Amino acid sequence: MRFKAQTKVKTLHDWLRAINAVADECIIDTSETDAVVVRVVDPANALMLDIRMPDHAWDLLDTEPGRIGVDLALLIERVKMFDPDADITITTKESKLVLTDGSARYRVRTIDPDSLRKATILPALELPAKITVDAKRLQRLVRNAASLSDHLRIGVDTANQCMFVRAEGDTGDYEEPLLFDGEVVVLAEHRVDVSSLYSLDYTTETAKNLSGDVVIELGTDLPMLISFVLHDAIISYVQAPRIEKEG
Amino acid sequence: MRFKAQTKVKTLHDWLRAINAVADECIIDTSETDAVVVRVVDPANALMLDIRMPDHAWDLLDTEPGRIGVDLALLIERVKMFDPDADITITTKESKLVLTDGSARYRVRTIDPDSLRKATILPALELPAKITVDAKRLQRLVRNAASLSDHLRIGVDTANQCMFVRAEGDTGDYEEPLLFDGEVVVLAEHRVDVSSLYSLDYTTETAKNLSGDVVIELGTDLPMLISFVLHDAIISYVQAPRIEKEG
Amino acid sequence: MRFKAQTKVKTLHDWLRAINAVADECIIDTSETDAVVVRVVDPANALMLDIRMPDHAWDLLDTEPGRIGVDLALLIERVKMFDPDADITITTKESKLVLTDGSARYRVRTIDPDSLRKATILPALELPAKITVDAKRLQRLVRNAASLSDHLRIGVDTANQCMFVRAEGDTGDYEEPLLFDGEVVVLAEHRVDVSSLYSLDYTTETAKNLSGDVVIELGTDLPMLISFVLHDAIISYVQAPRIEKEG
Repeated sequence: MRFKAQTKVKTLHDWLRAINAVADECIIDTSETDAVVVRVVDPANALMLDIRMPDHAWDLLDTEPGRIGVDLALLIERVKMFDPDADITITTKESKLVLTDGSARYRVRTIDPDSLRKATILPALELPAKITVDAKRLQRLVRNAASLSDHLRIGVDTANQCMFVRAEGDTGDYEEPLLFDGEVVVLAEHRVDVSSLYSLDYTTETAKNLSGDVVIELGTDLPMLISFVLHDAIISYVQAPRIEKEG
Repeated sequence: MRFKAQTKVKTLHDWLRAINAVADECIIDTSETDAVVVRVVDPANALMLDIRMPDHAWDLLDTEPGRIGVDLALLIERVKMFDPDADITITTKESKLVLTDGSARYRVRTIDPDSLRKATILPALELPAKITVDAKRLQRLVRNAASLSDHLRIGVDTANQCMFVRAEGDTGDYEEPLLFDGEVVVLAEHRVDVSSLYSLDYTTETAKNLSGDVVIELGTDLPMLISFVLHDAIISYVQAPRIEKEG
Repeated sequence: MRFKAQTKVKTLHDWLRAINAVADECIIDTSETDAVVVRVVDPANALMLDIRMPDHAWDLLDTEPGRIGVDLALLIERVKMFDPDADITITTKESKLVLTDGSARYRVRTIDPDSLRKATILPALELPAKITVDAKRLQRLVRNAASLSDHLRIGVDTANQCMFVRAEGDTGDYEEPLLFDGEVVVLAEHRVDVSSLYSLDYTTETAKNLSGDVVIELGTDLPMLISFVLHDAIISYVQAPRIEKEG
């Protein structure tokens, strides 16, 4: 199988970390000609990721259809050895990924894809509420919630014209609204009262990788779909809701 | 009981940390109309703190006489969630402290003040030596001493015209003078030969919170009184001496 | 025994750390009149250091012939208490080293030199390959190798006109060439095909202390000699090769 791809070290690093938020290993799927695709699901089936790194997101992409299994922590550790601004070329050779910036060369063992969990396709979700929010703003809210609880309620409150997060812990609680007029963008048809509870174990991990404008799609006691663009790759996380046990 | 107070996040944070150097919980006393007062003593009765946050140190202060018990570590953790430059408003509602910057809102459980150790009034001390020293200078001396010993001798040496600190450890010792002419300010009537030994367990904690000009009052084998102003609040620490066992 | 020496705190600190990479204690030898010399060897006899701090590297040096035993970690800890840009004076008094910047004074217990391992003289090595490389460049290569293996092959490859490092781990391998034309300086007579394997336990420690232009002398399955100048002191490390078990 032929595989050759080139991009910036920083770009590759950020993509790999986004995948690593969900799984420790993944299958790089090159069955499409114009994109490299990775789909992973966490062991508990509570969090899925779909990332599509299209042709134009790479400086060079030359692939044959196939699948490459990789250990993400190991690969990230190697990618971090390079200067973030350098160009990195990835090729395959004798069951190894070869990483080089033209001078240093790392060879990393690949994993038999058949030994890895089968990649799944994201479920088709029709979620009524849809909010666009800045990544940094959302990250701050998730960090605050995580400091006092292990779960987070996210919802839309049309009466108060806001998207909100709430978290409840043994020692107190936290609430913060993001107003429709400026802090978040919500089209009229997506201003619907909804709210669901999510485990912060997962949300904390995914939040770290968010970038730019993030689109959150929500329902009531339904999965949450989070989509954003990361260096021209399109990333979607789907997180299952937690059964309600709030006070 | 009505309680409403507003100030800068950073100010509140620094006040709470100064109290937390002595105790994990405290009673916020609002029995005076023009100040919020907290008095705490450590479990071993070796270190006391009295902090008086007057009316003018707050942007807004509206209280009824009463007492509020709080868990300091918990409250500090919440206060740290806010932007240090933001304005924070604290109110009480249904046995909770409500913290808000106008957007995010944390509710923190309060503690029944009757379940907490009774606050004591600082003892009246007449200490012969009185030195004014810059907080940063004193902090450096305490750190140096703590790196090789668990106790610290502080004194005044009129022959050498200095305040001094000395520390002795198993592997060597440390001594540093602060000269009357410039490094410390000591009025003629407070230039008296004195020296006492203190446990660095406590001094290290209190030193971290010092700010601006710090007044140290000393005697021989007597408690040390350390006073300073922190964002318009007046703080006094009293630390008991350690029984001499020096070589 | 009279000993008085003065230099910058940073200079002394860097010298002591370079010695500490090999041993925890050392003998400061003042038997020469124009230099202070320290020679140490690690417990496994795999790594030796020779450092010669000449007269002109000190701001003041006044010694009688003799030997002073010191605990390096302890001495470094004390030296770190001073401002790196300050002048530090070291004297001996009653089996103690006295360190002062003119104000603070630390006294550190010395060790009886007879209780310490005897210092040895560096073996005379005639190594065919000799490479001059920038310290930072070499440090990066050693860090990269250490991230995936516990040993490192260093060699010269005349066919590819380079000095190279290679490291092999369970999960992949690493290789990076440094080209003769620009990345390293190698005279024609020192361009010889050689390669030896070294334990990264030692190389990682010594690499941290390298500075400026570093001269590496190499053979095949022979010790490696690394020499450089650190604040006017001349440092040589000799590291024994590791018996080959690669492949």
